[in-house]
Formats: sequence, C-alpha cells, structure tokens
Amino acid sequence: MVLAYEGTNYAGFQRQSNGPTIQGVLEDKLGMILNCKVNIIGSGRTDAGVHAGGQVVNFKTVNQLPAVKIQKALNSLLPEDILIRSAEETVLDFHARYSAKNKTYSYNIYNDELRPLFNRNFVYYCRHQLDLERMKNAAVVLVGRHDFKSFQAAGSIVSNTIRTIHFCQLHQAGFLVTILINADGFLYHMVRNIVGSLILVGSGKWPIEKFKSLIDKKDRTLAGPTAPAIGLCLEEVFY
Amino acid sequence: MVLAYEGTNYAGFQRQSNGPTIQGVLEDKLGMILNCKVNIIGSGRTDAGVHAGGQVVNFKTVNQLPAVKIQKALNSLLPEDILIRSAEETVLDFHARYSAKNKTYSYNIYNDELRPLFNRNFVYYCRHQLDLERMKNAAVVLVGRHDFKSFQAAGSIVSNTIRTIHFCQLHQAGFLVTILINADGFLYHMVRNIVGSLILVGSGKWPIEKFKSLIDKKDRTLAGPTAPAIGLCLEEVFY
Repeated sequence: MVLAYEGTNYAGFQRQSNGPTIQGVLEDKLGMILNCKVNIIGSGRTDAGVHAGGQVVNFKTVNQLPAVKIQKALNSLLPEDILIRSAEETVLDFHARYSAKNKTYSYNIYNDELRPLFNRNFVYYCRHQLDLERMKNAAVVLVGRHDFKSFQAAGSIVSNTIRTIHFCQLHQAGFLVTILINADGFLYHMVRNIVGSLILVGSGKWPIEKFKSLIDKKDRTLAGPTAPAIGLCLEEVFY
Repeated sequence: MVLAYEGTNYAGFQRQSNGPTIQGVLEDKLGMILNCKVNIIGSGRTDAGVHAGGQVVNFKTVNQLPAVKIQKALNSLLPEDILIRSAEETVLDFHARYSAKNKTYSYNIYNDELRPLFNRNFVYYCRHQLDLERMKNAAVVLVGRHDFKSFQAAGSIVSNTIRTIHFCQLHQAGFLVTILINADGFLYHMVRNIVGSLILVGSGKWPIEKFKSLIDKKDRTLAGPTAPAIGLCLEEVFY
C-alpha cells in the first residue's frame, strides 16, 4: 500500500508505547477489517512529526478481501491525517524495506520575515534570508557515491555509511524553499543533517567550502545542527 | 491591518459568547499591547470555519506605538492560526467595512475519489467528478450588475439585493478546483450559495440553463444548497 500522512500528531511511524504511531493505527484498523492480527512492514521509520506523501508498507494476510476493498475500508476507518493512496496484491517475498531501490525525501523551508500560516505544519520556518544559489552550489558535492558519516545522527552505530545520492535539487516558489533528495538509502537523520548544514550556507554563516569539505572529514561534530522534523516529508519509494 | 487566519477553530470573525472568535482574540491581544480596551472593525464578518488570506480590520487608539511595532507584538502573541500580514496608520475616517470598494473570495473544491489530506482544512471535498467547462459556461451569467436575491441566505431581510460581480473565474490545478469571485459587495452566504449551485451544474445534476435562469427568478428556494464554510476564503479587500 502507498500511504500519505501528516506526522504532526504521531510519535513517528514505528509502533511504540509513548504515543499514537502510524504503524499502530494502521495495524489496529487493518486488524478490525481483516479480523486478525496484522504486522505491517514500512519502507522506513519516519520520525515523530515527519510527514509522508508516498510511504510504502506491506503486510501478509490469508484474508481473500481484494486490495481495493481493503483500501476503501481503511480510508473510511483511518483518521483524517492518514490516507491510503493505493493498494495492490504483490509477490509473497516483497518487503517494503529490503526491496526498496531508492527513495525521495523533500525538505520544506518557509523563508520570510513573517511566520507561515496555512502550511505551518509542513515547513520549517527560517527567518534568515537564504541565498538559494549558494545552497545549490554547495549541494553539488552531495551527488554521487560517498561516505556520508558526517551527516549521520550522533551516536549511530551503522558500520557502512556509504550511500549514493542520485540527485539533490533545490527550488524556490514564493517563500517556500524545497530541497528534494533521492538516494539508494539514508542514514539516520541524514536528510535533516544535510539540510541543517545547507541552511548555514544559505544564511551566509558558513562559507560554501566548509560544506564541501564535510564529506571528506567524516566527522558528525563538524556538520550543522539537525533541521527540525516538521519540514521533512517522505515523498516516494522506488522498487 | 491586513490579516490571514485559518477559521477551522473559530466561531467566525465576530465576537460572541459561544466560542473563540477572530475579533475576540484580536481585541484581547491588542488590549494587552496597547493597555486599553480596543474595538476592532472588520471588512466583513466571516462565518465559522471560513478562512482569510487578506481580511482587513481597523481600530482607533491614542497609543503612539508605531504600526509595525504593534504588528510584531501581535504576531508574537497571536495563536499560530492568525497572522497579521501588514499594519499601517491611516486617515481617521477610514472604516474597514464602509470604505471597502470590492472584495475577492475564493472557494476551493477538492475533486477526487480519494479524500484530501494535507489541505483538508481548506477545501470542500466533492467526490462527484466536476465538469469545469460546464461550470464556466454557467458562471458567465453572474458577471455584471444583477439582483442576486436567489443567492441570498434564506431568511435574510436585506432590502437591496443588487450587487455587481466584476469577475467569476474558475480554474483547476490537479484535484483542486478554485472559484474566484470579486464583487462590490456580497449578500449573506452569496458565494457559498453560488458555489452550491455551480457544483450541481458541474456534476451534471442540473442543466446549465437552470443555473442561468436563477438570477431572473429571484427566488432562493430554487437555488442549490449552501456549499460548506470550509472551502471559503476571503482573499482580498480593495479600498
């Protein structure tokens, strides 16, 4: 199933005890529809407050209900901040996480003197005027196969920190600056750490060269702060 | 002052006892800043759930605080669903309502099989597929100086129901159908009643000619239902 959600009121994708989660709500409603316990596998675990336009999940069931009927039943039971965009039967060994080839995330920054209003739950509000050309110039070095250790969350213990970024596009529409990043995989907090550093470049606090040197340094303590979850959105997963 | 707000959590613009209102919140916060009771006059009273991108209000004060300082102080005190876009001193006899020359409202319809997600608080969800060309064809008769009695709220006692609609534009972007109407004045529920009838034309339930005959009939009972408040937004007021 492909689903979209607003992450504002959830403690993230993964089921846990300290608040409602996307996985928890989905599994509960699916259990009601299919009349049995359901385990959902997501393409990745979005953090608390992170949104999705095209998260992908899979589950196994012996229930014969057609996928489209499951989708309709779910959409009528789910809260208004979660929506199943599509559902289909697939091969038995499909795995939403391990079968994923690459993913696209967006990060949205609202860049004005006045705070955002209508889209306030979906953007990070940055008052400092950002120079998009500087950010684009810096972001060029991200594309390709690199060791992204400098952009990994502090304390992570992933041994292989090499990933391939296929594109990192920045564009502006009115006060909205959007950064689109597609990669074959993302380290924990990788997009938010990249964006946090790009903002320092865009606001002029960092020289472009400082950003460009980060990949070679392989040291998280040199990168900028982690940009807030509110601006992040998992846009699409490719298989 | 020009302000924007999301009307979802308000009992409308006008101060009243059965819930928070835009006027009530504004007057309370202004009173704190200016240290005296403030009476606010709005360009019009938007209903419960109706939004604004450019509502205009005025108030009188002997306080010498510059308008821009008042704006900043207000924006830091106001809840996140109300924003002062601009503020300026003006002539003493300016009246946000009586000085207004014309206004533009938008009405937003989300037209898809799947319900809306990210913009769900700002659109009326219509599942029936709408034929925009039919709606445009019907809307042509609205433009000009007419007696809009058929589109006045039932029970209204306004004697002069003649208004001039300067334009009524319909356009579509993805699943979003937007109707923009500018007029020198609006009867109570006029936009929502026009939209309710246009939707009947767009979904094929009404022949175009039925809509076109409404103005001449001058009978509210013949027009379609009042479209919900959620899709309406006061976009701009001209002086």
